Amino acid sequence: MNTKFNFLNRDIVSIRGFSREEIDYILEVAKSIEPLAEKGSDMLRGKVLAELFFEPSTRTMLSFQTAMYKLGGNVIGFAEPGVSSVWKGETLADTVRVVEKYSDIIVLRHPLEGSARFAAEYAQVPVINAGSGAEEHPTQALLDLYTILKAKGKIDGLNIALMGDLRYGRTVHSLAYALSLYNVKLNMVSPDLLRMRNEVLQDIRSRIDVTEYRDIEEILPELDVLYVTRIQKERFPDLGEYEKVRGTFAVNLKLLKSAKDDLIVLHPLPRLDEIAVEVDATPFAKYFEQARNGVVTRMALLALILGAIKNE
Amino acid sequence: MNTKFNFLNRDIVSIRGFSREEIDYILEVAKSIEPLAEKGSDMLRGKVLAELFFEPSTRTMLSFQTAMYKLGGNVIGFAEPGVSSVWKGETLADTVRVVEKYSDIIVLRHPLEGSARFAAEYAQVPVINAGSGAEEHPTQALLDLYTILKAKGKIDGLNIALMGDLRYGRTVHSLAYALSLYNVKLNMVSPDLLRMRNEVLQDIRSRIDVTEYRDIEEILPELDVLYVTRIQKERFPDLGEYEKVRGTFAVNLKLLKSAKDDLIVLHPLPRLDEIAVEVDATPFAKYFEQARNGVVTRMALLALILGAIKNE
Amino acid sequence: MNTKFNFLNRDIVSIRGFSREEIDYILEVAKSIEPLAEKGSDMLRGKVLAELFFEPSTRTMLSFQTAMYKLGGNVIGFAEPGVSSVWKGETLADTVRVVEKYSDIIVLRHPLEGSARFAAEYAQVPVINAGSGAEEHPTQALLDLYTILKAKGKIDGLNIALMGDLRYGRTVHSLAYALSLYNVKLNMVSPDLLRMRNEVLQDIRSRIDVTEYRDIEEILPELDVLYVTRIQKERFPDLGEYEKVRGTFAVNLKLLKSAKDDLIVLHPLPRLDEIAVEVDATPFAKYFEQARNGVVTRMALLALILGAIKNE
Repeated sequence: MNTKFNFLNRDIVSIRGFSREEIDYILEVAKSIEPLAEKGSDMLRGKVLAELFFEPSTRTMLSFQTAMYKLGGNVIGFAEPGVSSVWKGETLADTVRVVEKYSDIIVLRHPLEGSARFAAEYAQVPVINAGSGAEEHPTQALLDLYTILKAKGKIDGLNIALMGDLRYGRTVHSLAYALSLYNVKLNMVSPDLLRMRNEVLQDIRSRIDVTEYRDIEEILPELDVLYVTRIQKERFPDLGEYEKVRGTFAVNLKLLKSAKDDLIVLHPLPRLDEIAVEVDATPFAKYFEQARNGVVTRMALLALILGAIKNE
Repeated sequence: MNTKFNFLNRDIVSIRGFSREEIDYILEVAKSIEPLAEKGSDMLRGKVLAELFFEPSTRTMLSFQTAMYKLGGNVIGFAEPGVSSVWKGETLADTVRVVEKYSDIIVLRHPLEGSARFAAEYAQVPVINAGSGAEEHPTQALLDLYTILKAKGKIDGLNIALMGDLRYGRTVHSLAYALSLYNVKLNMVSPDLLRMRNEVLQDIRSRIDVTEYRDIEEILPELDVLYVTRIQKERFPDLGEYEKVRGTFAVNLKLLKSAKDDLIVLHPLPRLDEIAVEVDATPFAKYFEQARNGVVTRMALLALILGAIKNE
Repeated sequence: MNTKFNFLNRDIVSIRGFSREEIDYILEVAKSIEPLAEKGSDMLRGKVLAELFFEPSTRTMLSFQTAMYKLGGNVIGFAEPGVSSVWKGETLADTVRVVEKYSDIIVLRHPLEGSARFAAEYAQVPVINAGSGAEEHPTQALLDLYTILKAKGKIDGLNIALMGDLRYGRTVHSLAYALSLYNVKLNMVSPDLLRMRNEVLQDIRSRIDVTEYRDIEEILPELDVLYVTRIQKERFPDLGEYEKVRGTFAVNLKLLKSAKDDLIVLHPLPRLDEIAVEVDATPFAKYFEQARNGVVTRMALLALILGAIKNE
């Protein structure tokens, strides 16, 4: 393995903190650690992870729990809609400086942008950002990459589309950045109202080609990867506009007739009707595999940051 | 031990899925595993159980947690009144297919009948039904049988009464079915409004004798086991009717004067005033022991399903 | 180590249950166990702690979780604002007699005074009081003493002030009692409305000297330890009175100019503005260290009560 990287005690605030080589290395560790997701390990025996979830995110929370348990560690903290009231009246700086005394690593989910970086500055233990405002969700991007790599054997050279809400979804922001470190063709497919913001687009275009579409059918036949995100009703000023968009940016068997045989369809879940259930049983569907890959990728990160896997 | 049974990766949806021989085997394993409930074990080291509780059931939830911990495994998931909102907008089929990626076994509690069977069909990991609608609570029936067996040394030949709400209580449905696999005399004691439904009664009567009573005093002197359940005020159209019933179907020291010395009184808990606290200190009271037996019985099931105890 | 003390299976209901020699011994064990708070241990492998929190106290709950995990044990239970509704309709006596069947030790937080003693009487497993009404929080007092001992090398001979709400805060009641077992000079600094109750004061004065002040500046220069507590707005009949008090009983750099160089400032947290954030970076600030010392002290208690450390 490459000897240039040191993840010991490192904060994971943004996917922008990683070089392509570092991401490749994490995915390599994930692959090597995958058998332990089945049988478990004692790598992190005696270590405690604190989950500080100021907004609910059940899947991410459970995923980190399993990652820690499968490595022999333990987890404190809890998430519930009212969790923020539990810490009410206390600054995030104080909460972090207390919780780090109970734990070896903190996983933070917070509605405010910048919160994860702020927490990382105060904490003496490493902090992993599990979603901060609309900006970042770096471990989701890593698991998305790992899913693509497992299904396709490579990332370079792929033709990839991100479809749905590209404006507000933090998942696609982190993923688009991560993909821009690879030699991929990236397509953005969204309704006008939900186009990716210009500043994000420009940043990505400084590294790779990006084309925007309003209709998935135009490019579907060439795609290797179709990444679908949820479009929320609340984003639209009137319901009629939403209903129109909803039908257009959805994936079903009829649409997939024009797809390559080895296209893979991803979705961060939960889904509403962006992907018809009839797709679930097809080989296209990799969205449930993403959940398992999330455990594996987070196991790799935890083992690296807490020093159980040393890069030497 | 008997070699006919294979519980590896088996779903536990309904007590109706078990033969008498299988139940006997589980109770035998429970007995052999009981010392580990005290000192713990590494049998399920590295295994993760997911608790998916769509309605609160603190006792059942804690009982499964302890069962898993005492075998060296871990538990993810949580229950709170608002838990269903956490998964809101996602189908049960999707939730199950995500959560199974985080876990080796799922324990499901859900307000809808049929939900556990539905989940088991979608999940690739085994699913244990911890209560689905009003129909089933199979692990409660197993722990009830184990409690009777421990106290009496046998189940065959006993004279047993189920008293209280026999119409809506899922506990008594599962238990009555399980008891009907044994050679017991079964008595049903309930107010008219809360009689066991005819279709359930008929099924049980196809195997054993069942007599119905409206007054426990008629049969108390002959009983070996008295199983009491809670009668909920909400079941009655008027409060006067409830108040009358409430006094009649309650157990206290005065009533127990006519009981055999070795009668045992059971209750799934929580109780309100169906059993007077003055009974707690008597040898009749086995309802708190049921809680401990629940841990032991669930340990046996988990060890069998996850392959830590192999039947060979 | 001293051979006179036996903590096996002992209930920790009140700090009043300890002799000075016993407290010294616990602090000694805490010191010896401190390295395990870093690297973990298998001392309590197979043991299960139940957290019964009938009112939220996130810090105390997380602290006990980490203490148990670092010793290799596990934790069941959960706390949320609605937790009491989960047990609604069940008496505390019943809840305790059920939960003890799932666990080897119970940690109880309850809004009613006397609740911990009541629970300890019913439970066959040991019960630790993690806060009962306004009266007691014995493990907080122990961690406060441990923090003083670590920072000062001794407790005897120190000049200590308790400042803020001395009337309603259970923390200061337990701590004041514990300190009165040592040869310290104790100063009480509070607004008139929040003076320590006479019966508590009299009890403490039967052992050591206590002086009351309304102004911290009078004694600050002589202090070795300043223990600050939160003053809650709700305690005051009018807001103007509160605002005046709020400024007077707060600690900032200006005030600390007259302090000894080695004064330590403690606070049970969370703080509002009783301690200015500018104090955080000074050597005076030991309030975040208290959080870590809470884990260590609770590890010592759990190891002693559950027999992993034997005094022989």
